[in-house]
Amino acid sequence: MTQKLKLGMVGGGRGAFIGAVHRIAARIDDEWDLVAGALSSDPDRAAASAADLGIDATRSYASYADMAKSEAARADGIDAVAIVTPNHMHAGPAIAFLEAGIHVICDKPLSATMEDALKIEDAVKRTGKLFILTHNYTGYPMMRQAREMIANGELGDLRMVHVEYVQDWLTEAADPNNKQADWRTDPARSGAGGCVGDIGTHAFNLASYVTGLETQKLAADLTAFVPDRRVDDNVEVMLRFKGGAKGMLWASQIAVGNENALRLRVFGTKGGIEWDQETPNQMTFTRFGEPKQIYTRGGAAAAGAGLRNLRTPGGHPEGYLEAFATIYAEAAQIIQVKKDGIGVPDGVHTPDISDGILGMKFIAACIDSSNNDTAWVSL
Amino acid sequence: MTQKLKLGMVGGGRGAFIGAVHRIAARIDDEWDLVAGALSSDPDRAAASAADLGIDATRSYASYADMAKSEAARADGIDAVAIVTPNHMHAGPAIAFLEAGIHVICDKPLSATMEDALKIEDAVKRTGKLFILTHNYTGYPMMRQAREMIANGELGDLRMVHVEYVQDWLTEAADPNNKQADWRTDPARSGAGGCVGDIGTHAFNLASYVTGLETQKLAADLTAFVPDRRVDDNVEVMLRFKGGAKGMLWASQIAVGNENALRLRVFGTKGGIEWDQETPNQMTFTRFGEPKQIYTRGGAAAAGAGLRNLRTPGGHPEGYLEAFATIYAEAAQIIQVKKDGIGVPDGVHTPDISDGILGMKFIAACIDSSNNDTAWVSL
Amino acid sequence: MTQKLKLGMVGGGRGAFIGAVHRIAARIDDEWDLVAGALSSDPDRAAASAADLGIDATRSYASYADMAKSEAARADGIDAVAIVTPNHMHAGPAIAFLEAGIHVICDKPLSATMEDALKIEDAVKRTGKLFILTHNYTGYPMMRQAREMIANGELGDLRMVHVEYVQDWLTEAADPNNKQADWRTDPARSGAGGCVGDIGTHAFNLASYVTGLETQKLAADLTAFVPDRRVDDNVEVMLRFKGGAKGMLWASQIAVGNENALRLRVFGTKGGIEWDQETPNQMTFTRFGEPKQIYTRGGAAAAGAGLRNLRTPGGHPEGYLEAFATIYAEAAQIIQVKKDGIGVPDGVHTPDISDGILGMKFIAACIDSSNNDTAWVSL
Amino acid sequence: MTQKLKLGMVGGGRGAFIGAVHRIAARIDDEWDLVAGALSSDPDRAAASAADLGIDATRSYASYADMAKSEAARADGIDAVAIVTPNHMHAGPAIAFLEAGIHVICDKPLSATMEDALKIEDAVKRTGKLFILTHNYTGYPMMRQAREMIANGELGDLRMVHVEYVQDWLTEAADPNNKQADWRTDPARSGAGGCVGDIGTHAFNLASYVTGLETQKLAADLTAFVPDRRVDDNVEVMLRFKGGAKGMLWASQIAVGNENALRLRVFGTKGGIEWDQETPNQMTFTRFGEPKQIYTRGGAAAAGAGLRNLRTPGGHPEGYLEAFATIYAEAAQIIQVKKDGIGVPDGVHTPDISDGILGMKFIAACIDSSNNDTAWVSL
Repeated sequence: MTQKLKLGMVGGGRGAFIGAVHRIAARIDDEWDLVAGALSSDPDRAAASAADLGIDATRSYASYADMAKSEAARADGIDAVAIVTPNHMHAGPAIAFLEAGIHVICDKPLSATMEDALKIEDAVKRTGKLFILTHNYTGYPMMRQAREMIANGELGDLRMVHVEYVQDWLTEAADPNNKQADWRTDPARSGAGGCVGDIGTHAFNLASYVTGLETQKLAADLTAFVPDRRVDDNVEVMLRFKGGAKGMLWASQIAVGNENALRLRVFGTKGGIEWDQETPNQMTFTRFGEPKQIYTRGGAAAAGAGLRNLRTPGGHPEGYLEAFATIYAEAAQIIQVKKDGIGVPDGVHTPDISDGILGMKFIAACIDSSNNDTAWVSL
Repeated sequence: MTQKLKLGMVGGGRGAFIGAVHRIAARIDDEWDLVAGALSSDPDRAAASAADLGIDATRSYASYADMAKSEAARADGIDAVAIVTPNHMHAGPAIAFLEAGIHVICDKPLSATMEDALKIEDAVKRTGKLFILTHNYTGYPMMRQAREMIANGELGDLRMVHVEYVQDWLTEAADPNNKQADWRTDPARSGAGGCVGDIGTHAFNLASYVTGLETQKLAADLTAFVPDRRVDDNVEVMLRFKGGAKGMLWASQIAVGNENALRLRVFGTKGGIEWDQETPNQMTFTRFGEPKQIYTRGGAAAAGAGLRNLRTPGGHPEGYLEAFATIYAEAAQIIQVKKDGIGVPDGVHTPDISDGILGMKFIAACIDSSNNDTAWVSL
Repeated sequence: MTQKLKLGMVGGGRGAFIGAVHRIAARIDDEWDLVAGALSSDPDRAAASAADLGIDATRSYASYADMAKSEAARADGIDAVAIVTPNHMHAGPAIAFLEAGIHVICDKPLSATMEDALKIEDAVKRTGKLFILTHNYTGYPMMRQAREMIANGELGDLRMVHVEYVQDWLTEAADPNNKQADWRTDPARSGAGGCVGDIGTHAFNLASYVTGLETQKLAADLTAFVPDRRVDDNVEVMLRFKGGAKGMLWASQIAVGNENALRLRVFGTKGGIEWDQETPNQMTFTRFGEPKQIYTRGGAAAAGAGLRNLRTPGGHPEGYLEAFATIYAEAAQIIQVKKDGIGVPDGVHTPDISDGILGMKFIAACIDSSNNDTAWVSL
Repeated sequence: MTQKLKLGMVGGGRGAFIGAVHRIAARIDDEWDLVAGALSSDPDRAAASAADLGIDATRSYASYADMAKSEAARADGIDAVAIVTPNHMHAGPAIAFLEAGIHVICDKPLSATMEDALKIEDAVKRTGKLFILTHNYTGYPMMRQAREMIANGELGDLRMVHVEYVQDWLTEAADPNNKQADWRTDPARSGAGGCVGDIGTHAFNLASYVTGLETQKLAADLTAFVPDRRVDDNVEVMLRFKGGAKGMLWASQIAVGNENALRLRVFGTKGGIEWDQETPNQMTFTRFGEPKQIYTRGGAAAAGAGLRNLRTPGGHPEGYLEAFATIYAEAAQIIQVKKDGIGVPDGVHTPDISDGILGMKFIAACIDSSNNDTAWVSL
């Protein structure tokens, strides 16, 4: 066994959601040990949360700044930090750890403002440290295989992309006691985008990741349907890609009857694929003029990148946590390369700072277009 | 039994597609006898087609004009004529029969040009005869029930509509020997709209029919992906409805892996529904905060308008032809009212000239918006 | 057009279910005219029902015996009679019409008793007239294609068949006002088998029809779950076929949440198919070691027998009534052959008297086995 | 945080399948540390496998007997051992560890022979140590909720159970290089049952677990379809439960087109449920006379036991590994109770030795019945 890597975490204390997801993801493939944290801005909560997680009290920090400095100084300091705070709290710790020489794994979207995003990008460039953005849906094996099939020309020249990410949990005014809903509907913490930042960026990222298409411009219509909501909760976008392909993107948090329905459909001159995150172990693929085929994770048609990061055979469903774990496994692989010089395997394509910046441009362009009567806006 | 009505047909000779569908639809509920026709502009083909269909040779006409005149003069003349010619050949016969005092059942879209459309509308108004447009997808019982549920407020105030109608049969350049593909991709016969007229109008009509929403304006991006194609084959539209609801519409004939996928989703403050024409006997309905329910045609939740025009119990799938037959059955009911004074039953809402005009406005607005950089255009 | 055939009907008056289905089925393909009937054993109801259906009063008969005699005597007498009475009333009219020289189309199961069944078989043999049993589920194009694929060896040597036909409409004691439920749960009218006769025979027939396998013996466990029910409402059967294949059959009318779920799965050394009557336009086919494919009615993989009797293209769902219509269309084709000498097309395999006898043996063997502690019983 | 528990493992070295699954399952909820192992009967492979897994060389043992003895002697010895060897190698280590005072977590089925099974049972009773059998499919939240719904009477009195577990990976003769296929088709290692032991026991266990029904007797027909196969590869069973309910069970490893399709359907006087392991995050529930509802893991209808052991919200699919992890999480909870006296939470129902014995009786009864012409055999 290669030595396990040491992970720290900023945010993710008691009552948080995504922090626990990151921790499970980091455990699944046994490549990380969580050894340090600044888990809450509230010192008591930070300490209690660290104790919950078996983090030694000496490595539970009251601030991310202390943590970055102290961990950088230790011989056995962390290899990477996971940043799982609300969006407006990404830039501070990200830059602090990068500057301390520590790799960063950061939740998406990159930040609440473009200004912050560019500062992070600058720090990444200056320091040369790794920056991984957890666009976890790219970790699904079927999406890896789809990406490779498209790159290999199995769909021919791409024409049309339809991506949607629809939920219903914000159909009514957010309960102020729901910590998740509360910050996501507060522009000071989530950024000017609501739904467009929270899930629209996932949809946009996944479509870009799988198709390899570069968005030239977009036209958007954003709406806040719930009275008094300060950010959008429904997002309609038309996309035009370089080379002539087009796309539609729909994100919504008021689509009653949908839990977490991220669905991607891509059509080219020779074939089409369709995939739904809620049944992630299968994807359909149709060659024009032939019957539709059901490709399954680990099944008869699994190939290439679709065969990496499988933990179980076909028919033993893997899900959201395993896809997330693949991001952590790949982060570990890349860091090991930096330490050991061993090459990164083919097929490792983990979202990074460029995806983060692109996501911020997507949010900004959507808001800009929507504010200008759905005018086409370049990305 | 009420006396069966007498039907004539214009178009629908050998080699045609939709004419045969109309004839089956007219037979299913046993309310019509096909007794006359001008089945082809080619006299030999017209006569042979009439013989195929058991139409007496004396009532097989070489032109629709002769037919309108002769049938109007007969004591046992036809009660209605079905017009199943390509779009650019709707106005001539429609007006001729209306002016001859004969009811008209016409395939959609209304015509190839707005000019023709308005002439038909004028004739309908002048003559007071019935004009039924066969937007057959409105005939599905689940769509009738959805319309009634929405009208009754079961979904609350509507917010978002997503409708798509996607196929793949025009993924490659049309075979000139394929009569269906040939005229549908020729603007002289289909009108300036290709996909937008052929199936976009169905999607728009169904969404309007079910939701009762009035479209205020739209923004569209139409594309002809197949080289040298003279009409659009992919249609992206954003919709804004009176009262603040919004919508997205996607129609495509190049979406590889889709046969005839007309899907409607409607979301309101209290609930959401989802339906797919390819599995038309079920529709899901979710009340916010409750589990999704599967409503079936003729099943436990069938109610009101969803219980009309059922020919078999739940679990015995009815399909496209039965939905089409409902249009004919309702046409017969309405005509009987005109003859007998018996009232039309509640729940009969058959698409008529106003739907036809609205469809033409939809096509024109889509083309206009698309030609103007996706600007918002009022309907 | 070939001249339409003339149809008579025994049973199917006001309040009946299956009679109306037969009439629609006979109309869809325009090969039959309903011109005579003995629609009810109650003379008033018979006359009123005939008037409803536009049958001339002179050809509405008070008894099937009169009808057989009179119609046989007419120059323009009926070509065939449809028998749609309860099971115990099949043999009388079937034999009368056969002996009068009139072809018979009879609802299933063949009769209420084996004694009756053998009498009908004897009459068919003596008279040489056509006897068609409306095992309508064999009329689905996907089942025709499956049959041909299996006959062609595409599944290899067959090993395992799983067929089920489950409903829930008899979950509670039958309402005596429900005419359908009433006679089906009365052994004097339905025969000793309840569920096994009503739907078990459909499942057995479909499995036999599609696979071509001959059942050697079976072991059954029949249950009447509803208190005081006099016939079975749940049927479990194990099957052993000639050549070594095996099967399981489950029929139930108390499986809450199922409307009319007839599902067939067949597995061989080289491939497997799966089909569900409630979504009849698709069937999956898997070649061993390859991804599952979705074959659709009229779609890219439609071939051979799967291409006959299509009325609409792929994606335009056809259903129960169209499958039933195929039985009537084929009956007409076969009768035309008898009249005109034109050969029956390949791929016409309409269930006949031998299927009826086999179905009766199936019912008898199930009851016998169940009464003998689930012993294996030869068919 | 409660102190993590220490886990050892017997079997599961390089090239094994289920050992890796157990290790991921033990990691997901962070309650176990793997610290010792006898990972292979081959000493070199054992040592190399231990190194792979970061197990200290001093705690990598050449035999399970050494391991049991040494670990029992250590102050920091393991709390439990996971036994993941082929079936015929369960009894030896199970008894050794139990007698050494160490809790056992054992893969299913319990053993290759009933003799071994009874010896294990005896050891469990004598030692009072915990014995957990990893019937992992019981760990799915929907199955927990189904169990509770049935116990609460939401389905009324149960009538009919249909369970199936079908795969196709043994459609052809096993490749001797496929370690998994090889031992599973060798009666000396798997026991006299092939498919019936490998997956039939899972199906039987899940049906028993969820329904709470006690099997009175069964009738079975086992087949080895693949030439020269020494164990069954297809299993048909009829079940009779105490109280009058009945059931059918089908397990197969030659059902082409099926990966790992474990499906359970249960019907009572008041309702029915249906679930499929390959889409484990949803289950349908129908109350008689109402529309079918889709219950989702973590969704609107999640309740009671269905809310335990959720790691993510609805729509974020959890799968096979998470269900397996729940077995490990519950094992930890129960062991903590034994150490700390804290009570086991309601809703913890982890399969134990009694399930193991019952599974062995099921296998034996199936083989006995099948060898006796499908006679009914008491369990």
